[in-house]
Amino acid sequence: MSTNDLSNSVIFPIGEKFESDYFKGTVWLKMLTPFGSACPIGNVTFEPGCRNRWHKHAGGQILLVTGGRGYYQQWGEPAKELHTGDVVEIPADAKHWHGAAKDSWFAHLAIEVDPDKGPATWLEHVTDEEYNQLQ
Amino acid sequence: MSTNDLSNSVIFPIGEKFESDYFKGTVWLKMLTPFGSACPIGNVTFEPGCRNRWHKHAGGQILLVTGGRGYYQQWGEPAKELHTGDVVEIPADAKHWHGAAKDSWFAHLAIEVDPDKGPATWLEHVTDEEYNQLQ
Repeated sequence: MSTNDLSNSVIFPIGEKFESDYFKGTVWLKMLTPFGSACPIGNVTFEPGCRNRWHKHAGGQILLVTGGRGYYQQWGEPAKELHTGDVVEIPADAKHWHGAAKDSWFAHLAIEVDPDKGPATWLEHVTDEEYNQLQ
Repeated sequence: MSTNDLSNSVIFPIGEKFESDYFKGTVWLKMLTPFGSACPIGNVTFEPGCRNRWHKHAGGQILLVTGGRGYYQQWGEPAKELHTGDVVEIPADAKHWHGAAKDSWFAHLAIEVDPDKGPATWLEHVTDEEYNQLQ
């Protein structure tokens, strides 16, 4: 994907490509707060088809969708389609994943809640079988 | 101001007019998180010329500018002009104000840091003399 595809609707800096086994596909990350902030905020941009592994946050996380179309799914529940302006409050220790739709880039701010409670725990990948069922 | 002037670049819900002596001018507020959240986030939209009083937050605050042109000023420092995509980390207990430029609406997300530390403390208004010196 060319980052030009993101259009002018991307309002926060896109940052650098983030090489991580926690994601399938290409993702860009820009931290908007300094290291050690009491309220860490990252701007995360997924290419079409890109998503992260199932994972959980010790203190929870809030997603603020700033562009594109994607999904959030909590373990045991159907995936929820997300669009610009949507807000997701992810409870502490809830197993979940998020990422782009197949045919759309996707951008959200990710706010870590209560970072003192500990880091994220990364689990298995979302399989192609699970992901390809989504529209 | 008609809210239509805000254009399509406003990505989070604008909410309702917020009647408060803490602001001079008309402001709209939409809380994006439920009451009692560990990470309260409000979408705040100021009409041109609108600003809040000098105030401080016991745990600090983060502003994420989503549209328009405005200002942030910390006590004893010059006002800093803000545009879409800017991020301001306001330290705990730092006396400050924020608001729109004279000729522009202004929208930011306001994230309360460490809300358990206590509420905001509201102080004197920014005088017209102070405000009118800004470009």
